[in-house]
Amino acid sequence: MDGLMMEYPLTLPRILERASRVFARKEVISLVGDTTHRYTYGNLYGRVLRLMDVLRDLGVGKGDRVATFAWNHFRHLELYHAVPALGAVLHTLNIRLPPEQLAYIVNHAEDSLLFVDESLAKPLAAVAGQFRTVRNYIVMSDQPGATTGLPQPLDYEALMAGAQEKERFPDLKETDACGLCYTSGTTGNPKGVLYSHRSMYLHSLMCALTDTMGLSERDVVLPIVPMFHVNAWGQAYAVPLVGASLVFNGPFLQPQHIVRMIAQERVTLALGVPTIWNGLLQYLRQAGGDISSLRRMVVGGSSVPRAMIVAFQKEFGVPIIQGWGMTEMSPVGSTMHLTRRMEDWPEAKQFDALAKAGIMLPGVEMKLASENDDALPWDGETKGELLVRGAAIASSYFRNEQAREAFTADGWFRTGDLASIDADSVLTIHDRTKDLIKSGGEWISSVDMENTIMACPGVLEAAVVARPDVKWDERPVAFVVRKEGAALSAQAILEAISAKFIAWQLPSLEDIQFVEQIPKTSVGKFDKKALRARLVAPA
Amino acid sequence: MDGLMMEYPLTLPRILERASRVFARKEVISLVGDTTHRYTYGNLYGRVLRLMDVLRDLGVGKGDRVATFAWNHFRHLELYHAVPALGAVLHTLNIRLPPEQLAYIVNHAEDSLLFVDESLAKPLAAVAGQFRTVRNYIVMSDQPGATTGLPQPLDYEALMAGAQEKERFPDLKETDACGLCYTSGTTGNPKGVLYSHRSMYLHSLMCALTDTMGLSERDVVLPIVPMFHVNAWGQAYAVPLVGASLVFNGPFLQPQHIVRMIAQERVTLALGVPTIWNGLLQYLRQAGGDISSLRRMVVGGSSVPRAMIVAFQKEFGVPIIQGWGMTEMSPVGSTMHLTRRMEDWPEAKQFDALAKAGIMLPGVEMKLASENDDALPWDGETKGELLVRGAAIASSYFRNEQAREAFTADGWFRTGDLASIDADSVLTIHDRTKDLIKSGGEWISSVDMENTIMACPGVLEAAVVARPDVKWDERPVAFVVRKEGAALSAQAILEAISAKFIAWQLPSLEDIQFVEQIPKTSVGKFDKKALRARLVAPA
Repeated sequence: MDGLMMEYPLTLPRILERASRVFARKEVISLVGDTTHRYTYGNLYGRVLRLMDVLRDLGVGKGDRVATFAWNHFRHLELYHAVPALGAVLHTLNIRLPPEQLAYIVNHAEDSLLFVDESLAKPLAAVAGQFRTVRNYIVMSDQPGATTGLPQPLDYEALMAGAQEKERFPDLKETDACGLCYTSGTTGNPKGVLYSHRSMYLHSLMCALTDTMGLSERDVVLPIVPMFHVNAWGQAYAVPLVGASLVFNGPFLQPQHIVRMIAQERVTLALGVPTIWNGLLQYLRQAGGDISSLRRMVVGGSSVPRAMIVAFQKEFGVPIIQGWGMTEMSPVGSTMHLTRRMEDWPEAKQFDALAKAGIMLPGVEMKLASENDDALPWDGETKGELLVRGAAIASSYFRNEQAREAFTADGWFRTGDLASIDADSVLTIHDRTKDLIKSGGEWISSVDMENTIMACPGVLEAAVVARPDVKWDERPVAFVVRKEGAALSAQAILEAISAKFIAWQLPSLEDIQFVEQIPKTSVGKFDKKALRARLVAPA
Repeated sequence: MDGLMMEYPLTLPRILERASRVFARKEVISLVGDTTHRYTYGNLYGRVLRLMDVLRDLGVGKGDRVATFAWNHFRHLELYHAVPALGAVLHTLNIRLPPEQLAYIVNHAEDSLLFVDESLAKPLAAVAGQFRTVRNYIVMSDQPGATTGLPQPLDYEALMAGAQEKERFPDLKETDACGLCYTSGTTGNPKGVLYSHRSMYLHSLMCALTDTMGLSERDVVLPIVPMFHVNAWGQAYAVPLVGASLVFNGPFLQPQHIVRMIAQERVTLALGVPTIWNGLLQYLRQAGGDISSLRRMVVGGSSVPRAMIVAFQKEFGVPIIQGWGMTEMSPVGSTMHLTRRMEDWPEAKQFDALAKAGIMLPGVEMKLASENDDALPWDGETKGELLVRGAAIASSYFRNEQAREAFTADGWFRTGDLASIDADSVLTIHDRTKDLIKSGGEWISSVDMENTIMACPGVLEAAVVARPDVKWDERPVAFVVRKEGAALSAQAILEAISAKFIAWQLPSLEDIQFVEQIPKTSVGKFDKKALRARLVAPA
């Protein structure tokens, strides 16, 4: 017997309509050079209607892929809402991808239009000759007219000026595709994740929950996480859904610009990867700045060093909520908050907990799997591969049958992460399975060692990878970046970490290498492929 | 083109599984006489499995209606989870219904089993002879053996002792029915609302959001709102979903018991109707008590007097979140929080805002309709009938074709409430359309007048209804209950309210009647039908 409740498909235009209707006067603020561009959700609605008109005129229909190559700003937000509202698919391209991957992705997705920031047009133009399906390039600019090198570029604002605000929304199923992101795989070609309206709507609700990000109408949200990176962790939809204000920094990601926007707009929530906040921390210590409006920061994308959590809490009174997720999970899978039980713990133990990946969101289920996919216990000790399933998790990759092995027959997605879950249901990600160091038949976690080294005074960053070894198969090598002016020896580091690792796990003195910087991937993570290549080549 | 995301039906057993897996050690606490019964969500899961076994043995299959006649306690919670997990429909009977309505509802729903508290068995037995479809009565008791008067009663705990913990969950569609509540209509027979798993799951997410109830794992939640009254405002599902602890007061609703449980269990959120909190307020002022653990109270079911909001905030530091909803809305439709803009308002204006019905939840849409169903502006002045639609709102009534007129052709539900919405999107419910007083062709809001009278010092409660009048059609009559020991004249009340009403709206001195108490309906609202009957009969 069916319930007798309204059919109410969970589609993204409902979020836009809610923002424009219920929170019509709340603002979207974009940093544009020395000034800010400001408008309201009411204005956004009108602009999205116009943009839908533009897209229709350019021949975009249901299911078509529309790509973006852009920073965080109001025009990108307009695309986030207009493209799905037409039943088309928003494909956000990572602007930091190497050219050959970019070409592969655009051609694999068969993108029909490509919206590009004027400031990014030149690097894009260098690859555009390889794009086989892009009909039109639309350039987003505040002062149009610059040479872009793109074939017959159209101007975003000129098209908008010629368009009309027609309230014409096609009928959508909640299972219709709305967005597409490719994961930058460490092996093989990038794989596409095709989100649905339903999954993105539910993900917005899940992100907004008190124990996830606690989004409220009273918030002013600054997503430093890029809109070209897995849906800016859901902020383009979750924030308008609750009616909070949105602040975008555009391409201005240097600490002084971030601090300026936090202070000026009284930002209450900022989100981004650890690298960004590490930079901000050093800047604040040296130059100072007012971040007192922040009620919390959400940090994810890679493991958050405990020392950073302690520093922001103790020096600036800002709690860090660590988040964990994957492109295949929309992306947020877990967030860390102190539970009621932990409120009575001593401070040091609380910080230990806050350095973990957190508790799975409602709508996300987890399983620790043995090599035979048997369920392992949640005891904080046992490590296994993490499998996930849920309301906003991929069931397969876009046009990629070879990648089926990432999904089990009984409906779980294999994350490829080695993890444990403790008795408080808190997840710890020990490593990407492929980043583990296998030494003498035993495992060493590169992430644990990195975090331990990064907790040493004088260390700015550290990455640990495996070096091939005749006797032990693999041995750990630590690449360490010293803080400016810090005098720090390999011996000092070894002594500092020897309390947390067994003797055989420790790197040799020669395997602690000081470097100027750690190479990063297109999404800001340590590029371990590049580091491993350094070790193999000269040997 | 469909998105490539997992099929993940939103069903209630997922909430139970999450609570038992992720929050296995969190407690469910029930007040039982002089002591408390305590167990964990882990225990709840095992007991629900047993109860499912019991239900199967008693012949319950998919779609069958299983009724309860019970207070708030852990066994009622077990039924909330076991019945839907089997694909059956939980039908919570209001224990305060008059016998003829109770018989009508049980027969209309065709309830197959009826679970009843031992303490409520006798009143139920007096009506049971009229129930045509109930096969078995199962008595819930801590010390079984008392005479119930019911035909061949079974004992809940005896059945549980003989059952097994089988992990057998049938496949469920998210559109399957899971629950049934009847609205106590003021005209005609009660009408049934048949909830689905999907609507109830989404309603749980909506309730948990920061700007609704802000539910967190750190919460200890005391729903004084009964589980026999519209799903206890979603708490039986939303609270386990986030992993908060649940506290039940059973039949012990006197202020001293409520204060005791708040203090003893460090309750952080309590929910109930204004009558309960009014009683609590008087008690705290006289006898004192520790409610310092409360971070907020959610109050709804009828309009919350501004004076009560001020009193709890100023005297006890506890904010009141006003909620508004309907049985047809699962039930929560809106909640009131100060918006970012209102944070700068003077205190008195803030309290004015907090006395309103609040802002619609995500997943709830509202329309103010003229008599022709045209959309009216949200200007805080214009009043119209409130229409709603959304993810957890009824599309029709259970087996009741005559009640189709409550739904518009284009998919809205007619609430029957006269409302306005202001420029901050805050809803004000002025009256049930039928509770308005029509005087000389103009309208007087009975709710506005009640709240104004209740703000007078010395007034405990007040209800205003229409008296038939030859000259004006209708005139307002105020029934007023004085606080103990308060000397208050009709003249004093008239003077106190004359600032807020125009002269012709004011009741005459004779129409201000002091009474010992205001009659209440089965759900604790003022029984205006009964009051109107008093006015008509003697005239």
